[in-house]
Amino acid sequence: MKVQSVRGTRDFYPEDMAFRQWLFERWRAASRRAGFVEVDGPVLEPLELYTDKSGPEIVEQLYWLQDKGDRRLALRPEFTPTLGRMVAARQAALPAPIRWFNISRCFRYERAQKGRLREFFQWNVDLVGVEGEAADAECIAVAIDGMKALGLGPEDVEVRVSDRRLLAALVRHLGIPDERVGQVFAILDKRGKVPPEALAAMLGDAGLAPREREGLERLFAWRSLEDVDARELATDEVREAVEGLRRLFGLLAAYGLTDWCRFDIGIVRGLAYYTGPVWEVSDRRGEHRAVFGGGRYDRLLGDMGAKPMPACGFGCGDVVLGLLLRERGLGPAAEAAAEYYVAVAAPGETGVPIAIIDVVRRLRQQGKRTQFDLKGGSLKSQMKKAADAGVRFVVIVGREGAERGTVILRDMATGEQRDVTLEELGG
Amino acid sequence: MKVQSVRGTRDFYPEDMAFRQWLFERWRAASRRAGFVEVDGPVLEPLELYTDKSGPEIVEQLYWLQDKGDRRLALRPEFTPTLGRMVAARQAALPAPIRWFNISRCFRYERAQKGRLREFFQWNVDLVGVEGEAADAECIAVAIDGMKALGLGPEDVEVRVSDRRLLAALVRHLGIPDERVGQVFAILDKRGKVPPEALAAMLGDAGLAPREREGLERLFAWRSLEDVDARELATDEVREAVEGLRRLFGLLAAYGLTDWCRFDIGIVRGLAYYTGPVWEVSDRRGEHRAVFGGGRYDRLLGDMGAKPMPACGFGCGDVVLGLLLRERGLGPAAEAAAEYYVAVAAPGETGVPIAIIDVVRRLRQQGKRTQFDLKGGSLKSQMKKAADAGVRFVVIVGREGAERGTVILRDMATGEQRDVTLEELGG
Repeated sequence: MKVQSVRGTRDFYPEDMAFRQWLFERWRAASRRAGFVEVDGPVLEPLELYTDKSGPEIVEQLYWLQDKGDRRLALRPEFTPTLGRMVAARQAALPAPIRWFNISRCFRYERAQKGRLREFFQWNVDLVGVEGEAADAECIAVAIDGMKALGLGPEDVEVRVSDRRLLAALVRHLGIPDERVGQVFAILDKRGKVPPEALAAMLGDAGLAPREREGLERLFAWRSLEDVDARELATDEVREAVEGLRRLFGLLAAYGLTDWCRFDIGIVRGLAYYTGPVWEVSDRRGEHRAVFGGGRYDRLLGDMGAKPMPACGFGCGDVVLGLLLRERGLGPAAEAAAEYYVAVAAPGETGVPIAIIDVVRRLRQQGKRTQFDLKGGSLKSQMKKAADAGVRFVVIVGREGAERGTVILRDMATGEQRDVTLEELGG
Repeated sequence: MKVQSVRGTRDFYPEDMAFRQWLFERWRAASRRAGFVEVDGPVLEPLELYTDKSGPEIVEQLYWLQDKGDRRLALRPEFTPTLGRMVAARQAALPAPIRWFNISRCFRYERAQKGRLREFFQWNVDLVGVEGEAADAECIAVAIDGMKALGLGPEDVEVRVSDRRLLAALVRHLGIPDERVGQVFAILDKRGKVPPEALAAMLGDAGLAPREREGLERLFAWRSLEDVDARELATDEVREAVEGLRRLFGLLAAYGLTDWCRFDIGIVRGLAYYTGPVWEVSDRRGEHRAVFGGGRYDRLLGDMGAKPMPACGFGCGDVVLGLLLRERGLGPAAEAAAEYYVAVAAPGETGVPIAIIDVVRRLRQQGKRTQFDLKGGSLKSQMKKAADAGVRFVVIVGREGAERGTVILRDMATGEQRDVTLEELGG
């Protein structure tokens, strides 16, 4: 009986792994260009790291186990709580601001479907210790630089930006009481994901009067910051949030990112810990689905028992982004496993593979990716394997050449072949 | 209350992560030089993937959980069973031989102590589809190339090589019955790890007569293949195993690895699935501890319900090797998070950081790792941050320069500074 893999997990065969590494290298390079440094934490974290801070959706979807000492361990569903724990543990010793990035495997026990897997990777970029919009703009700039490096442009994706404080102030201004704002946010995050009638029903169930629901509809019709109603702007909270967003868009313009970004009052983000600007990258074509997002979380460190520190960042999963990239035909160029294949002209005669190992060694020492036939087949079978491997060069070791210290070098692209000395090889 | 990390797991702060990436890059390069391609599988695997094949020690140390559908999922303790599952799933379509490598996070629930952690990384190199010793030699050559790339030499580590078939034949020749060979192997794998008296007691408990125990002692006194007793060589099994080992050492000599390798009859390896040559890398200095090892496992694929295929490979953990490397002072050179820091001469005046973002963009577009002060501090505070970040160059944007299209470029290594145009910057 063959064992099957677990549903919602992936096997990365060489072509899948090449795609994953191509993606990770570009994420890494974009982070490093902006002076971020890589960190990581464990996959196993104490369950309580998530139960309070990540919000009910994440906690419901946790994989967790009880160890022999009855401790409850979770498989990390996201990286931000780990980052918070790590910062809290060394807060005094870390340079400020903290510019960290991470590419981590995360786990969510949700219904496996297209774009939703139980094991996935997430690129996290976080900036801790800076209060102003410059930090939010910097994170958005890194996210966009990463997408550009993958071949995406502003015609493919857009970054929709809002501020939770703005929506909260507006919701309060509509007369919805403070204690219900969190619940209303969780419902509003479903906008565009559930039918409008279902959304209206959820808001009704949450106790919103028809007048309040209409007020929300009116807000969501805004298309730019200029649409913010003069009546609403009269409250300090709303005015401050709008001014902050104007500064943020000014910074994004300085980064040359105006084409990529627009205001969208409807952006809420699901995570409970966001406190300020929030943003979401979405696919401009097709399903217009959310690809990833980020935001400001100024209270997380204080809530974790550390000295409070402002923070912002984003987490970008590899699954939806991967679908989008493949739809656009973006990915790594195919690469052969080896550049050189070393063959022996008369296997029976010279003894295989002893005769060719010296040549293999020389090529590998020069950093050339080199294979040879471990089975000692005929020259014909060796040449077939070399062609199958897609190598550029075949080196043929023969008895005559061995006496003169030469081998035959065949260029598989041109079919040309010539005698070269061992010293010339691979140069 | 601050949440503590789980015992036996690690947080990778930037300096730890730099070390890990330095290690992984060298593992990856050594694998690729030998024409191996990277693969990966899930962390979550069905528990039954391990319960039959990996041997009791691994199964006792599994982390596992029961999902909502009552399926038992294990956190992978090693990569080889996943490799077997992946090969079995696509056996007909995969090119032969299969040359795969993998760097995976694995989990073992053992007592956390120096050199033993509950989460660790493992470099796996596997060659599937080749029967002869050439494949075993190729894997050992990749392992040694990886160690060389890390700065280790034959004065640091040695590769001790044996063949399970040789020890099995000798044990049977001593009169120990077939059904007890597996148990005796498991005990012999503890040699050097427990005191000799404890080992003798375990062998006694396993039912070995004093004469048989003395026979084992005599075998373990052998120092080279030449020491194999003529009486023992008279059996076909023993003679064949010795001939195979001689061929293997001949191949290793062709790779230029004689200094690194020696025969050691005492090498057994803990994993149940090994069937032929087995080898172990050990530290030549200090504690002479086992660092990692590998071997041939010709029956694993058949046991997994696939078409039987010969296979060999190794798995190298990062924990013991990491200790060894740090003891030898080997690791990456320190690298600053950024190469350039862009400062503004008069923050209050020109407005921060809008004025400098254009310069930051240009540098990052050229691939230069570039930071700037997101808080818009004074020039003095910006220069201090630049020095703390360890950058090589500071670019100072001033109002006068802005009018002429120039900035000041300061080389922090020499203290020299000069005016450059924006076009010259980063060139």
